[in-house]
Amino acid sequence: MRAAVARRGQMVVDDVADPVPAAGEVLVAVRACGICGSDLHTLRHAHSMLALASMTGAEDAFDPDADFVMGHEFCGEVLELGADTEGLPIGPGDLVVSVPMAFTPTGLELLGFSNRYPGAFAERMQLTAGMCLPVPNGLDARIASLTEPVAVAVHAVNKSALQPGDGALVLGAGPIGLAIIAVLKARGIAPIVASDFSPRRRELASAMGATSVVDPGVETAMDGWTHAAGAATPVVFEAIGVPGILDDICRSVPPQTRITVVGVCMETDSFLPLVAVAKELQFQFVIYYDPSEFADTLRQLAEGEIDPSPLLTGVVGIDGVPDAFTTLGHPEGHAKVVVEPGAGAAITPL
Amino acid sequence: MRAAVARRGQMVVDDVADPVPAAGEVLVAVRACGICGSDLHTLRHAHSMLALASMTGAEDAFDPDADFVMGHEFCGEVLELGADTEGLPIGPGDLVVSVPMAFTPTGLELLGFSNRYPGAFAERMQLTAGMCLPVPNGLDARIASLTEPVAVAVHAVNKSALQPGDGALVLGAGPIGLAIIAVLKARGIAPIVASDFSPRRRELASAMGATSVVDPGVETAMDGWTHAAGAATPVVFEAIGVPGILDDICRSVPPQTRITVVGVCMETDSFLPLVAVAKELQFQFVIYYDPSEFADTLRQLAEGEIDPSPLLTGVVGIDGVPDAFTTLGHPEGHAKVVVEPGAGAAITPL
Repeated sequence: MRAAVARRGQMVVDDVADPVPAAGEVLVAVRACGICGSDLHTLRHAHSMLALASMTGAEDAFDPDADFVMGHEFCGEVLELGADTEGLPIGPGDLVVSVPMAFTPTGLELLGFSNRYPGAFAERMQLTAGMCLPVPNGLDARIASLTEPVAVAVHAVNKSALQPGDGALVLGAGPIGLAIIAVLKARGIAPIVASDFSPRRRELASAMGATSVVDPGVETAMDGWTHAAGAATPVVFEAIGVPGILDDICRSVPPQTRITVVGVCMETDSFLPLVAVAKELQFQFVIYYDPSEFADTLRQLAEGEIDPSPLLTGVVGIDGVPDAFTTLGHPEGHAKVVVEPGAGAAITPL
Repeated sequence: MRAAVARRGQMVVDDVADPVPAAGEVLVAVRACGICGSDLHTLRHAHSMLALASMTGAEDAFDPDADFVMGHEFCGEVLELGADTEGLPIGPGDLVVSVPMAFTPTGLELLGFSNRYPGAFAERMQLTAGMCLPVPNGLDARIASLTEPVAVAVHAVNKSALQPGDGALVLGAGPIGLAIIAVLKARGIAPIVASDFSPRRRELASAMGATSVVDPGVETAMDGWTHAAGAATPVVFEAIGVPGILDDICRSVPPQTRITVVGVCMETDSFLPLVAVAKELQFQFVIYYDPSEFADTLRQLAEGEIDPSPLLTGVVGIDGVPDAFTTLGHPEGHAKVVVEPGAGAAITPL
C-alpha cells in the first residue's frame, strides 16, 4: 500500500507492506489523520527525543534509523475483522477511532511511532479491536480524527482543576492551545484570553472561542488578561513550550496562580524558584489523556458540545504529506492539516 | 533595652530605644523567640534577598544598611496595653503569640524585618493588639514560640492536598522539614520517610515522627521511599532549597507525583521540563501561612495534637545571639535555638 514514510529524517512516499489483521485486530481504511506538531518534531529530532524519553523511564520504543509510518490522530473505516473479535460493537463499514496504541503479543506499540505497526499516513492500518470506538451520530471522519488532539486538551483542562467562575489565559494558539480554547468554551469559561505572536493564530483563537486575543509583541499576555478581566487571577495554560516561558510566567502572574503546562519544551529551562515560592504558584505538567477522557472527547464532538472545526484548515493526500510537513513549519499558514489518503498532493484549504 | 541588632551584616548586642505602645498596640516582654534559617540568611544576604523580593512585587520593606532587630518566632508576656485596646481578651501577665506583622498608621511592618519596629531578639516589643492570640492551656512559652515555624509546616501540608492513605517523602530535615514531619504525624500519615545527609538531623526526624530515614549519601531518597513503601507514589515535600534539587526530583519520582516546594532556593535553577511533562508532575510552591492557619497551629500545639518539642535543641540569652547565629550554620549542631532574653550567653542544650 502507499504510505508517507519517515526515513532517516526525511518524509518520502513509498510502497510498504500491506497490514494484515492478527487475532484480536481489525483492518481499517484510513479516512482522515491529522498531522501533529510532534510528528514534525519526531522527523527532525527523533534521536534526542528518545534520549530524553529514556530519562522518564520510557523504553526505546522504536528505531528512528529504520523506516516508520507516522500518523496517530486518525479515523478509519473497518474493512475486515481478524480472528477472536466476535461480540465487539463494530463491523465492516463502521467508522472508528482509537487511542493510538496496539496491544500485541510482543508488547505495546505506539501507533505512529512504531517500526512494526504503520501509523495512519497510509492507506490502511491494523488496530486492536477492543480499543476501537465506533464514531456515533454520523460525525464526519475529519472531525472524528480530531478526537486525539482534543482529548489532550480535555485532559489538560481536567488536570487544571478549573472551577466554575474561573477565567483562563491560554499562552500559545497552536493546535493544542486552540483545542484548549474550544474545550474551555464548551465548559462556559469566560473570559478566555489567548496570546500568540501570529495574526492568523489569533484569528483562529477567536474563531475557537477566545473572548479576547493578545499580540505579545504589543502588550504582555498578563496585560491583555488584565484589560479583559481586571484584577481576577487567571488559570493559565502554557501551550508554547520554549525555554524561558516558565520564568516569564513566574514573574508576570499574580500570587496563587495555577499554571497547567501542556507545551513540551525539549531543552533545559531555567527559572528563579524564589519567585514561584513567594507567589505560591502551582505548576501542573500534563501530557496525553486516559482512555475514558478519549471516549468522552469523542462523545462531546459527536454531540456538538465541543466544536473544533475552525482548527481544520486544510486537507492533503498521502502524496502531499512531505510538502505539508514543510508548510506546517510556518504558523502563518495552516493550523491542522488532515491527511485523507485519496486527496490531492497539494493542500486544499478548508 | 538590650537587643541583638543586625548592623551592616554583623550581629551585635547593643542598647536600643525602649518600645512604647501606640494606640491599638500592646507592650510585651519577650519570653521566647526561635532563631530561623531566614534570619541567618538575611544577616548575610539582605541586599540580594530584597532585590529578588522586588521581582515578586514586594516593596522594599526595610533598609538593611540601617540597624534592625530580627526575631519573628516569638511568645511574649503582656506588660502594658496602649490606648484603644479595650475589650480584647488579653491583659497584663498573659502570654501571647502573633503573626509577625504590625499594622501601623504608616503601613505594615514585618516584625523581625523592620527598621522601625524591633523584632523579638530583644527584651521587649510592640505588637498590634488585635493580632495577639492568648496562649491557652498553660502552654510553655518555648513551645508557643514554635507556632510560627509550625504554621509554615501546617500551611505546606494543607497546600499539598494530602489525602487519607497517602504517604509522604520529606527531603531535608532542617527545622521546616522537621516541623512538616510533626504535622504529618499528627494527621496520621504513614509512612513518613525523611532524607538528610546529617546523622543528627535524621535522628531528630525519627524523634519528630518519621517512620524511616534515608542517608542520601548511601541511597537515594526515592530508593529509601521504595524500601519503606513499595510501589506507592509519595507526596513529596522539598525542604532543602538548593539548585538542582527540582531536576533531581523530576528524574527520580514516579509519574503523577505531587511535590510541595517549601525550600527557598535563592539562585536560578534549571531543569528539563520534558521530564516533568512526561510524568505529569505537579509542583506546588508555598510560603508562609494565613492567620487562620496560624491560630489553628497554636490550638494544635496547646492541645498536644502536634508535638514539636524534639525540634527545640537549645536556649540562649540575648548576649549569646551572635554566637548562636554562627553555631546554627552547622547542621550537626542544633536544630532550633530559642532566645530567652534572660538566659546565659552560651547555648544551654535542651
